[in-house]
Amino acid sequence: MAQLSEATGVTVPSIKFYLREGLLAAGERTSANQASYGDEHVARLRFIRALIDVGGLSVATAGEVLAAVDTPDMPLSYVFGVAQRSISDTTLFAAVDPATDGTRAADALIERMGWHVHPENPGRQGVARVLDTLARLDRTDIFSDLDEYARAAEIVARADLASVARRGEVGDMAETVVVGTVLGDALVSALRRIAQEHVSFELFPAPPTAHEGIEPC
Amino acid sequence: MAQLSEATGVTVPSIKFYLREGLLAAGERTSANQASYGDEHVARLRFIRALIDVGGLSVATAGEVLAAVDTPDMPLSYVFGVAQRSISDTTLFAAVDPATDGTRAADALIERMGWHVHPENPGRQGVARVLDTLARLDRTDIFSDLDEYARAAEIVARADLASVARRGEVGDMAETVVVGTVLGDALVSALRRIAQEHVSFELFPAPPTAHEGIEPC
Repeated sequence: MAQLSEATGVTVPSIKFYLREGLLAAGERTSANQASYGDEHVARLRFIRALIDVGGLSVATAGEVLAAVDTPDMPLSYVFGVAQRSISDTTLFAAVDPATDGTRAADALIERMGWHVHPENPGRQGVARVLDTLARLDRTDIFSDLDEYARAAEIVARADLASVARRGEVGDMAETVVVGTVLGDALVSALRRIAQEHVSFELFPAPPTAHEGIEPC
Repeated sequence: MAQLSEATGVTVPSIKFYLREGLLAAGERTSANQASYGDEHVARLRFIRALIDVGGLSVATAGEVLAAVDTPDMPLSYVFGVAQRSISDTTLFAAVDPATDGTRAADALIERMGWHVHPENPGRQGVARVLDTLARLDRTDIFSDLDEYARAAEIVARADLASVARRGEVGDMAETVVVGTVLGDALVSALRRIAQEHVSFELFPAPPTAHEGIEPC
């Protein structure tokens, strides 16, 4: 276990915790207090740490995601759903019921984009919830060009699925979906932050202060 | 306070909690156990709930974000940073030091895109961390078309900044930045989920099972 810790940079107490919580399979016992761990343990530990450290998942949520990946015959769309919900423990993806203005705006957007999706798609609920929230804040000026966001999302999804399609074996595909979904949101969020800085320097060469633009009384 | 609760759907205990934590300003006291609340309290409560319920922030993190919005003369770039970091309490945006392969790949991407950003941009650190994580997982096949993700991020950032630029007054701009950043990540994540379903049905008309693609021994 000390060697496993050294190979992965994960502390022995953390490894013991993951073993106890069922995230990591036990090693092959070689004596009363020794077990042998293989490359698959190293790979699994790195996967666990990627979900927790970079994806920001809790240990419990990482466990649920790993269980979905480990279950044989799990449809890929289900693994997608588990991975997506795991990223956010907010109410973002819960069903919006009954239909609201946000739901209708989300459906109109889906139709404009020519997208084919089930009504239960959690993303549809998420979009509806964001739009309803903006309406309550009286800030429908934000994201007013919703089609641009949708166009960007389709570019991301095509790049996502191209990665999945390159993998032949489905067990591997499930892991690809999880890594891609969890780290993909982190990647897009990070890239958005860089692009925002670049575009904001284009638009506001000097940082505006609180005094600019306020009309004198 | 009962009326404020009714107008916003936020429970009285929650309102009392936000008052105690300083997220919400006290009402104007009208008698020993009565206070008067105005439209600004209603708007503020809706803002708080948007950050917590839809953005997924903790009460403590929502408090930090609101403090940044409330501080006069706060440069917009700083508000951006606080809002961005608030979304994720992972180590995603912490500095990557010393430079890694991920940092070099992030810098090469930034140069290919023609983006002008400070080296301390948290997004640059985030991209580096995601790429380093993929390398450790031996899964550099994921996000291999990084330029497509960057192209999508620039479309999102231009739409983001167009919203900000439409607002004249900076206090308002800070709120726009926060709402846009926190809800924007939720929006993009939700749209990505819809687009993934659409594109995956295009590519895999029937959901693949664990048996497909596995070569017989």
